Amino acid sequence: MAKAVHTMIRVFDEDKAVDFYKRALGLNVSSRFDFDDFTLVFLQNPETDFELELTVNKGQEAPYNQGDAYGHLAFTVDDLDAEHTRFESENLAPAKKFEMSLPDGTSARGFFVTDPDGYKIEMIERGGRFL
Amino acid sequence: MAKAVHTMIRVFDEDKAVDFYKRALGLNVSSRFDFDDFTLVFLQNPETDFELELTVNKGQEAPYNQGDAYGHLAFTVDDLDAEHTRFESENLAPAKKFEMSLPDGTSARGFFVTDPDGYKIEMIERGGRFL
Repeated sequence: MAKAVHTMIRVFDEDKAVDFYKRALGLNVSSRFDFDDFTLVFLQNPETDFELELTVNKGQEAPYNQGDAYGHLAFTVDDLDAEHTRFESENLAPAKKFEMSLPDGTSARGFFVTDPDGYKIEMIERGGRFL
Repeated sequence: MAKAVHTMIRVFDEDKAVDFYKRALGLNVSSRFDFDDFTLVFLQNPETDFELELTVNKGQEAPYNQGDAYGHLAFTVDDLDAEHTRFESENLAPAKKFEMSLPDGTSARGFFVTDPDGYKIEMIERGGRFL
């Protein structure tokens, strides 16, 4: 059966993106493949083998257009408050924390942060269905 | 440490999206949360606990704009040729198969397919770094 293994996003500045994902999410470069016209960078941390793939097109002269279709990539953390404080101290500009009541009677706490290319990342506190 | 748990995409027609992801990737609805203004649908299959979250905004009157930033979600399968044939028989309109040589000396075989909202899905044959 098909297994989800990575999601790919195009980024304008490789160094800025790699630095962001390292500091925000502890993701490290697991592979970096350099081609004539583009570079592929795979990022991973020890929590899961699911990877984030960055595509860096060498001829790209302007930031990409985010559109309004794609939403976000979500990560869970044990201590949301501590992570929010850490994001602030790392100058990652996290949005305000939210709490969302779900129709099944549970709730979820989280916050959003935006990467250097404008992609949204959702941070969720572990619990309920978000483990 | 932060763990990647889902990626969220906005879809225009919930039924069409759920049908596509069921037939193409064996993803089933793990949770469906209905709110006044939107519905959240989480999709998952037994291969991994990583989920695909669909957001269905009830006031959306036109398809979303895909932009050119977000790339794709990738899945691995054991038998790429058999999956390509199955996708054709399911009228999922898979693109032609490709083979990509990687700078580390390995190669990867795959094909792309497009979901009802225009999101690209990459199917990759298991092997090498793609497991």
